[in-house]
Amino acid sequence: MNTAGRRPIVTLLTDFGTSDHYVAAMKGVIMGICPEARLVDITHGVGPYAIAEAGFTLSQAWSCFPAGTIHLVVVDPGVGSARRPVVVEAASHYFVGPDNGVFSMVYRAVPTHVVREISATRYFRHPVSATFHGRDIFAPVAAHLANGVAPAEFGERLTDYCDPGVPAGSVLHVDRFGNIVTSFLAANSKQPFTLRIGQHAISRLASNYAEMAPGELFVIEGSAGFLEVCMNQGNAAELLSVTAGTPVDLRLLRD
Amino acid sequence: MNTAGRRPIVTLLTDFGTSDHYVAAMKGVIMGICPEARLVDITHGVGPYAIAEAGFTLSQAWSCFPAGTIHLVVVDPGVGSARRPVVVEAASHYFVGPDNGVFSMVYRAVPTHVVREISATRYFRHPVSATFHGRDIFAPVAAHLANGVAPAEFGERLTDYCDPGVPAGSVLHVDRFGNIVTSFLAANSKQPFTLRIGQHAISRLASNYAEMAPGELFVIEGSAGFLEVCMNQGNAAELLSVTAGTPVDLRLLRD
Amino acid sequence: MNTAGRRPIVTLLTDFGTSDHYVAAMKGVIMGICPEARLVDITHGVGPYAIAEAGFTLSQAWSCFPAGTIHLVVVDPGVGSARRPVVVEAASHYFVGPDNGVFSMVYRAVPTHVVREISATRYFRHPVSATFHGRDIFAPVAAHLANGVAPAEFGERLTDYCDPGVPAGSVLHVDRFGNIVTSFLAANSKQPFTLRIGQHAISRLASNYAEMAPGELFVIEGSAGFLEVCMNQGNAAELLSVTAGTPVDLRLLRD
Repeated sequence: MNTAGRRPIVTLLTDFGTSDHYVAAMKGVIMGICPEARLVDITHGVGPYAIAEAGFTLSQAWSCFPAGTIHLVVVDPGVGSARRPVVVEAASHYFVGPDNGVFSMVYRAVPTHVVREISATRYFRHPVSATFHGRDIFAPVAAHLANGVAPAEFGERLTDYCDPGVPAGSVLHVDRFGNIVTSFLAANSKQPFTLRIGQHAISRLASNYAEMAPGELFVIEGSAGFLEVCMNQGNAAELLSVTAGTPVDLRLLRD
Repeated sequence: MNTAGRRPIVTLLTDFGTSDHYVAAMKGVIMGICPEARLVDITHGVGPYAIAEAGFTLSQAWSCFPAGTIHLVVVDPGVGSARRPVVVEAASHYFVGPDNGVFSMVYRAVPTHVVREISATRYFRHPVSATFHGRDIFAPVAAHLANGVAPAEFGERLTDYCDPGVPAGSVLHVDRFGNIVTSFLAANSKQPFTLRIGQHAISRLASNYAEMAPGELFVIEGSAGFLEVCMNQGNAAELLSVTAGTPVDLRLLRD
Repeated sequence: MNTAGRRPIVTLLTDFGTSDHYVAAMKGVIMGICPEARLVDITHGVGPYAIAEAGFTLSQAWSCFPAGTIHLVVVDPGVGSARRPVVVEAASHYFVGPDNGVFSMVYRAVPTHVVREISATRYFRHPVSATFHGRDIFAPVAAHLANGVAPAEFGERLTDYCDPGVPAGSVLHVDRFGNIVTSFLAANSKQPFTLRIGQHAISRLASNYAEMAPGELFVIEGSAGFLEVCMNQGNAAELLSVTAGTPVDLRLLRD
C-alpha cells in the first residue's frame, strides 16, 4: 500500500502556530504509533481557521513529495461538530483532515481522487476530546496509514464531500515577500494582457525579478504556475493593500 | 536503558525563537554525538525567560511521546550562575534542563520522579561558554542519554531541587486562538459553576466550540484536562485582556 | 565522499519564513531524490534578502554539525538573473547556494575552501522556474550531494566568486533577547576597554548574565566568540536602537 517504503513521510499543515504544544502533541502521537515515520512541517502559520489559505499552501507543496506521502491537514473551525473527518487518495498520495473544503485544490488537480469518511473509532486515541481532533483522530489515523493500514479500513467512500472549488478572478495567496498569487494560470501570459487589481492596471510581464527596477510593479509566471504580481525587492501586496480573496480582473488583448 | 529503541527521540523546548542559530547549534551537537537521534521541536516560541509558560507547554506535550523519549528544555535566565543543570526521570521519560522550576508540572504528574544534578563534565562540550549551556551542557547530555548512558552517570541524586509548584486559581496559558487555559481541573464542571476572570463571570459550559454562537464567551473542558475560557471563532484572551498568571476564581454552585 | 554515512544531514537556511509552502517544497524535492537525508532547519527567519544576516547565522551553526553535513542556503534576491549557483567545500562540510556573498564568513573561517559553479543542469528539477531556484536547482543539487555525487560533478572550480568579507567595527547580529553581537573578537577583552555604540560607552565586562543587575548594560564574551553588548533580563538592542550594521568602536586601554 505504502510506496514510500520502510520510512513513510507524514507532512503536517495546521493553523496551530508553533508557540503552543499542539503540533508536538500530534507528532508524539504519530511517533508512538509509527516509530519509523518521517515528519515534515509544511506550515503551522496559516491564519486561524483560514481554510482556503491552507488549501492553497497544500496545493503548492504536496506534489513535491514522493508518492506514498501522507499529508495531515488540521485547519478545523468545526472541530467537535458534525463535520466529518476524511481520508483522501489522490495520485498515490494520502490526505487526512476535516471535510471542510481544505482539499478542494487537490480535487481539482487530481480528478480521480477517492474520499472516504473516517469512522473506524478503533484507530482513534481515546478518550477523544471535543476540541483537539488533531491529536485524537487525525494524527493517529495518519500514523496508522503510515503503518500500512489501507484507506478502506477507516470508513466508507463519500460522494457528497465538501468541495467549494477555487474562486475565479481573485488573489489566492500573498507570500512573505509580498508577491500576489492570482488565480489566473500562467498560460494566459502568452498574449498581451491587462491585469487589474484595486486601482492598478499592470501589463508588464517579466521573466525574473532581477530584470526589473526596484519599486516597479510587474507580472511574472510564478513558480506555482499562476500569474503573480510582484515588485523587485519591494512588497507589492502592501503597496496595493491586497490580501487573499481580493478580486483580480484579467483582460487578454489582441496581438 | 533507552526504551525508544535504536532511534531515540529527543524533543526540544526553548525560549530561543527560530530566527537565531541557537536551536540549530544544539541540534548539530546532538547529531554529532548521537547520529541516530530523532529530533522534534516542541516549541521555541515561549516568551524570553518564561519558565512557567515553558513548564505548562512541556506538561501538555511530553506524555504524548513514547516511553524513552528525552525532553531537552532550555529556558534559562540564570545561565552561567549557580543554578544547577539536572536530569530527571519520570514515567520512563527523561528531562534535561536547568533546575529553575521548569519541571514542576512533571513533578506534579509523576510523584515517583528522580532528579539528579548534572556534574560529570566529561559529557560536556568544551570549552563551556558562560552564556550558551544549551549547546555546551544540555544538548550533549541529552545526546549521551540518547546513546544509552544511564542518568546516574551524570551525577548525584538531588532532594532539594527547585519545585515552585503551580499557582492555584490562575491562567496557566493563553494559546494562539485566544483560548484561556485555567488551573482548574475539568472535573469541576460536573456541577453548576461561576468562573470569574477580570470583570467577567461565566457559567455556560459548552461541549465543543461549534455549538456556540460566534462571539459568545463560554467554558469548555479543554484537551489539556483543564477548564478553558473560549469564544467560537473569536479571541477570548484579547477580549478579556488576559495573560498567563491572571487570577481566576471558580465557585461551584449547588445542584 | 560523504562522511556522514548512510544518513546524510542536510541543513536549510532561507529567508522564506515558515508560513508559505516554499520550505516544504524544497524538503519534498530533497526527500524524493535522497530518501535517507535527515533535514534540519537552521532558520527561515532571516529578513527578506538579508544576505549578511544569513551569512552570520550560518557561521554560528555549521561547525556544530558533524563532518559531511550539507548546508543549503537560499537567500537569493538575484534569483533568475546572472548570479551563479555554487557548491562550496570547506572543512569536510558542503555548502550549496547562490554566489552572492552569503558564504563570506565560511571563507574567512576555512581558508582552504573550494568553490565550484553549479552548471550541470542534469541535476536540476525541470522545468526550472525563473523565481524558485531553491526548489528547482539548490534543493536537487543538495540532495544529489547527499546521495554521494562528488562536488566536481556539478561544475568547474571558480576563483572569482563573490566574497565581500565582513564589515569591521559593526554590529553583526541582534538576537531574540536583544544581545548585540559585535564584529570584535572576544580576545580583545583581555585588557581594559571602552566600547562605543550610539551615544553609549561601555567598559564593564561580565562573565555571565546573572551576575549583573537587571537593566545594566555590559559586555560579555559571547558564545559566538565575539564581544556582545547585553543587559540581564532586558533588551540591550532595543534600548540602544541598534540593528545589524550599526557601527561600533572599540578602544583598548592601557593596563
